[in-house]
Amino acid sequence: MALPPSVTLREVGPRDGLQAEAPVPVAGRVALVEALVAAGLRHVEVVSFVSPKAVPAMAGAAEVIAALGPLPGVTRTALVPNRRGAELALAAGVDELTVTIAVSPTYNERNVKMTIDESASAIAGVCALARGDGVRVDAVVSCAFGSPYEGDVDPADVGALCHRLREGGAASITLADTTGMATPRRVDEVLAVTGPDVALHLHESRGTGLVNLYAGLLAGVRRFDTSVGGLGGSPFAAGAAGNVATEEAVALLDDLGVATGVDIEALLAAAALVEDLVGHPVPSRVARAGPRTRLATP
Amino acid sequence: MALPPSVTLREVGPRDGLQAEAPVPVAGRVALVEALVAAGLRHVEVVSFVSPKAVPAMAGAAEVIAALGPLPGVTRTALVPNRRGAELALAAGVDELTVTIAVSPTYNERNVKMTIDESASAIAGVCALARGDGVRVDAVVSCAFGSPYEGDVDPADVGALCHRLREGGAASITLADTTGMATPRRVDEVLAVTGPDVALHLHESRGTGLVNLYAGLLAGVRRFDTSVGGLGGSPFAAGAAGNVATEEAVALLDDLGVATGVDIEALLAAAALVEDLVGHPVPSRVARAGPRTRLATP
Repeated sequence: MALPPSVTLREVGPRDGLQAEAPVPVAGRVALVEALVAAGLRHVEVVSFVSPKAVPAMAGAAEVIAALGPLPGVTRTALVPNRRGAELALAAGVDELTVTIAVSPTYNERNVKMTIDESASAIAGVCALARGDGVRVDAVVSCAFGSPYEGDVDPADVGALCHRLREGGAASITLADTTGMATPRRVDEVLAVTGPDVALHLHESRGTGLVNLYAGLLAGVRRFDTSVGGLGGSPFAAGAAGNVATEEAVALLDDLGVATGVDIEALLAAAALVEDLVGHPVPSRVARAGPRTRLATP
Repeated sequence: MALPPSVTLREVGPRDGLQAEAPVPVAGRVALVEALVAAGLRHVEVVSFVSPKAVPAMAGAAEVIAALGPLPGVTRTALVPNRRGAELALAAGVDELTVTIAVSPTYNERNVKMTIDESASAIAGVCALARGDGVRVDAVVSCAFGSPYEGDVDPADVGALCHRLREGGAASITLADTTGMATPRRVDEVLAVTGPDVALHLHESRGTGLVNLYAGLLAGVRRFDTSVGGLGGSPFAAGAAGNVATEEAVALLDDLGVATGVDIEALLAAAALVEDLVGHPVPSRVARAGPRTRLATP
């Protein structure tokens, strides 16, 4: 078992975690990002610049960025669905953009009403725009391990799309298991084509998020998206469910001796905050049970 | 990645899954076992012969066995806490006994009010008794990957206890992660001492059940306990939570090409039945989302 000394977690809770929830006010979202940064997370997807009509929970993105201000040593990422969103995000002063494109034609069509070709062209335009501001773009490939519409996805198609996105100016690639169809076999098959220099964005729709993270780790991946409390899932994706919980990932990685820079107890305080903000229990088991180091009193 | 062509799942839902629930009548428990057998499970822990005062949900164990009758090709297992339970189980005509002993002194003391030495001696007595009836005994080692009282467990202690149990007549050993403290690191460390000829009984208290199952699989383990719907957890163990869900394990193993003999759709019908019987949703994600092969209609 060859595990790395450290990995980078990109916290997506303030964006992916909250987007399908009842709207949380800007002040609460800012407090959540600050709690996550205080716990040691150095890369946080804080907002998306989408239409507040389409995704009410993401309204006020510019206000969240303004209230946070620059955070030294922290990358504040914003998801942007199109050029207009990118312009707003760049004007707000974010540190990184994420853009999404599905390797599944039907999913892409239903999610953004564009063909994959059209999406790739639009993304190249966003990359050019961002480059002008010195801002990097991370391209997220949805349905990289299976599509709820077409079923299995050819790893060669994922590889070709990754190549095209890099050619179009994406600084990095994240492979997303949007509806929880990945297994270690699929992770291995896709990574054999793309190589391990990608991030993995995994969901727990079928309970395989953490096992896929582990498979990715064994295959050499060093960057993972996780969501505080295990919240998440596209409001538009059939069968989507929560992301890998940040505290479940950190508790696991801590015991494996893989450093994340995150303090588990401070992270659990952030998970308690997100539970307060959304007003219901979060799916994360570690948020309930605590890490394995928290013992009972006999 | 060296995966085996097949593994054996021992279904523990009718026992471990139901023991902490409001009591389900005998007829419902019999119907559940029959649904599990119909789905292809060939090894089922069907009851425990414990005091109905201590565990009301397990009352009527002999009636369950009688109503099931012999099931050709199926091993009907009963958990027994002591010699009296073993006598009742053998009189009822079960095919296998499970006995438990913790490698954690405090856990053992609190669970059965005996020292580990006293438990090991009692188990040797049960093994001798069962041998007279030609019935095999599987010894389950609780807290094999960590104790909620003492914390980390020395793998050498687990190995020594396994050796002692085999010497005492146990036909096989199951290593139980009673309160969800295992990680792939702990699984590897313990298996390095015990060897892979053990079964793993894993819990999802910290969301690591499936990742530990996968780690065990990679390390050569071929037998796993799972529970339909992901129910389970000792009513007496601090921090315990559900077992690995049988349908999550089968869905994963199906995609890995590891045969279980279980039909996932028939298994999901059994999961729906157990949900009806306990009267609340089960924690299994595959019970909700279905297997990855179940596609959406565009």
